[in-house]
Amino acid sequence: MIRTRAKVDFPVEQVRRFLEPGPVVLVSSKWKGKTDIMTMGWHTVMEFSPSLVGCVISCMNHSFQMVRNSRECVINVPTTALIDTVVGIGNTTGAETDKFHEFGLTADPAEYIGAPLIRECHANFECRLFDEALVDEYNFFIFEVVKAHVAKSPTYPATLHYTGDGIFSISRETISRRSLFTKGV
Amino acid sequence: MIRTRAKVDFPVEQVRRFLEPGPVVLVSSKWKGKTDIMTMGWHTVMEFSPSLVGCVISCMNHSFQMVRNSRECVINVPTTALIDTVVGIGNTTGAETDKFHEFGLTADPAEYIGAPLIRECHANFECRLFDEALVDEYNFFIFEVVKAHVAKSPTYPATLHYTGDGIFSISRETISRRSLFTKGV
Repeated sequence: MIRTRAKVDFPVEQVRRFLEPGPVVLVSSKWKGKTDIMTMGWHTVMEFSPSLVGCVISCMNHSFQMVRNSRECVINVPTTALIDTVVGIGNTTGAETDKFHEFGLTADPAEYIGAPLIRECHANFECRLFDEALVDEYNFFIFEVVKAHVAKSPTYPATLHYTGDGIFSISRETISRRSLFTKGV
Repeated sequence: MIRTRAKVDFPVEQVRRFLEPGPVVLVSSKWKGKTDIMTMGWHTVMEFSPSLVGCVISCMNHSFQMVRNSRECVINVPTTALIDTVVGIGNTTGAETDKFHEFGLTADPAEYIGAPLIRECHANFECRLFDEALVDEYNFFIFEVVKAHVAKSPTYPATLHYTGDGIFSISRETISRRSLFTKGV
């Protein structure tokens, strides 16, 4: 049983706090009454406002058509507590598995979109497809984060960062150099 | 004085080991005889082979035109030992500063391109511009890594991950779940 914490609204133009460090995320989607979840490591912040995130969702994934057809998804940030769930979700396909049920995850309703939030994740970012210019060629989607929900604490959760070969690096320590920034942070 | 280690050739289709975890990187470039270095946190792996990396280089950066005109750059991965250098490079502009000189960094020649490698970084990826379709609209460059140089050890260096507000998260611990991967890693 994963402990979950109450979430609060978070400014969408500040989601870089959670995404720029490059964690593995879980992408949840919904299409024609069915949901899916996939593991994703290939994403980048692209703009603060509008809050844009670019990511590669391989067309080999069951989620690909669900995201493309619905034009939305939720980017959920798991902490290290969910490592085995993250791997399990990557090992299975939504064509055969109801992943919320299989992995004991809770689907909470989003505010602006139809895809569900994963309650057990530290942060949930509701996304709408913003630009699909590179989807055919690179499977590269540009999303706008339209609503962000983040657990009240900790401010900097321990996150998983995938390196390939079954190895994750873990980020659980922070260091401030704020006093050295002269041009803005 | 930053200790440097000898580097070896590394397979370009495996650079995800260093980039997918999402570290802050240093981008070095050269144009008309001058070099520049910028700090970059907005990047993502896009394909294994060809080895593609997408990244946002703001047109506000002095490096933007140098990279765009030369159509190449080096993506260098610093470790935590370089944290103050990373911040210093982000605080200054190449329009006024020779950053290699200012920060005591060593410019090593690349093999395939004109831009220099930063010797003090753990890894250096020689990149050629692969697709500029989204440069005008999003400052988003897609590069192909044509050559990778990586320090012999450690296999997983401690890296810096920027969260905004002058705060870095640090990744210096790894955990394997290889035994749980059933679909490939």
